[in-house]
Amino acid sequence: MLSLKRIFLIMAITISGSLASAENYIPLVQPSKTGGLSIMETLWNRHSDREFSDKMLSNQDLSDLLFAASGINRVEDGKLTSPTALNKQEIDLYVFTKEGVFKYIPQGHRLQPVAEGDQRALVAGTPQFSQDFVLTAPVCLLTVANPQKFDQMSEMATMMAVTDAGIMSENICLFCAGRGLSVVPRATMDRDAISKLLNLPEEAIAVLNLPVGYPK
Amino acid sequence: MLSLKRIFLIMAITISGSLASAENYIPLVQPSKTGGLSIMETLWNRHSDREFSDKMLSNQDLSDLLFAASGINRVEDGKLTSPTALNKQEIDLYVFTKEGVFKYIPQGHRLQPVAEGDQRALVAGTPQFSQDFVLTAPVCLLTVANPQKFDQMSEMATMMAVTDAGIMSENICLFCAGRGLSVVPRATMDRDAISKLLNLPEEAIAVLNLPVGYPK
Repeated sequence: MLSLKRIFLIMAITISGSLASAENYIPLVQPSKTGGLSIMETLWNRHSDREFSDKMLSNQDLSDLLFAASGINRVEDGKLTSPTALNKQEIDLYVFTKEGVFKYIPQGHRLQPVAEGDQRALVAGTPQFSQDFVLTAPVCLLTVANPQKFDQMSEMATMMAVTDAGIMSENICLFCAGRGLSVVPRATMDRDAISKLLNLPEEAIAVLNLPVGYPK
Repeated sequence: MLSLKRIFLIMAITISGSLASAENYIPLVQPSKTGGLSIMETLWNRHSDREFSDKMLSNQDLSDLLFAASGINRVEDGKLTSPTALNKQEIDLYVFTKEGVFKYIPQGHRLQPVAEGDQRALVAGTPQFSQDFVLTAPVCLLTVANPQKFDQMSEMATMMAVTDAGIMSENICLFCAGRGLSVVPRATMDRDAISKLLNLPEEAIAVLNLPVGYPK
């Protein structure tokens, strides 16, 4: 895997136009088939951490983390590790690092660059209220619910999509508990700025973000 | 552990007044500390099943299932296996069986009887739309969000509470994946009838239900 920094350099040289439309996907290594604590030990170890080493996750750990959140675990029908209502797969997962922001694409288990530079401050909070510990996490994940993917926009569609974002975030928390990574699910963030940065549809809802890293 | 049927017989004989106010808690056996697939194998095995053996869960499996959903995994401060916003612990978990309906009480890891008899049809659906496969599951779990437990009732409080119900339901799904139990998260149910049966506060939201059983 090319480093994320290298990818942006290549893109800056070769691509004109919006980054958001660039098709320069970054492949991830294959997710591990086994490993980590047993499910019962994982549940006993589930907790929130707000201290992180600033060391970037290894390629394998990043791959496994994203697979845990939303990877395809049944190739035959493209179904995901995290269930969604009516299998609408209406939750998008974004990855904020020091180098940029990427969208996780389950199909092909890869990353799509969507914004350059360190945008983690938008995850940390707003100008009015921010939590600096977030800036020390090498990876900040963001779950975005898209209730508009249900046939009818309604209160029920919103409830289902928001629920499904919670489901995905718990896959992340339990993966971290089972693999000894630090994580905390958070609702605080600068939603307006994130929506603008990621060019989200008006109906989309940034639900939870999750800073992830090795323990400090 | 007394059988659930026996508990209701005892209650019928000894208690006058509302079942819902009865303090006859049913203790659960201690949850297992270890066991089940590794977290990575669990994630690969996560899927929904709609076929169940009608065999009741063993006392140990029922205990472990409820601990997985919402048990206290840090006795020193009463924190739960499933995170909640600001640690409000605003999600209630109900257990529907052939014998009755019970509320899971994390403090003391026990069940509180809240309604007599087989009420699983209310989980299966409404008179207009119902899914009979639910009636074959020996245990149907129900997550109920209580946004009124946040200091201010608002759209944000509702979103956080509904998200947290999704989080709890995924603990249930991953536990089942890691222990070889069948489960499917569902939004269909008779919310009005359930709300009346369980005497839920007006603001409470029955978010997801999860039929659970051994594979057929």
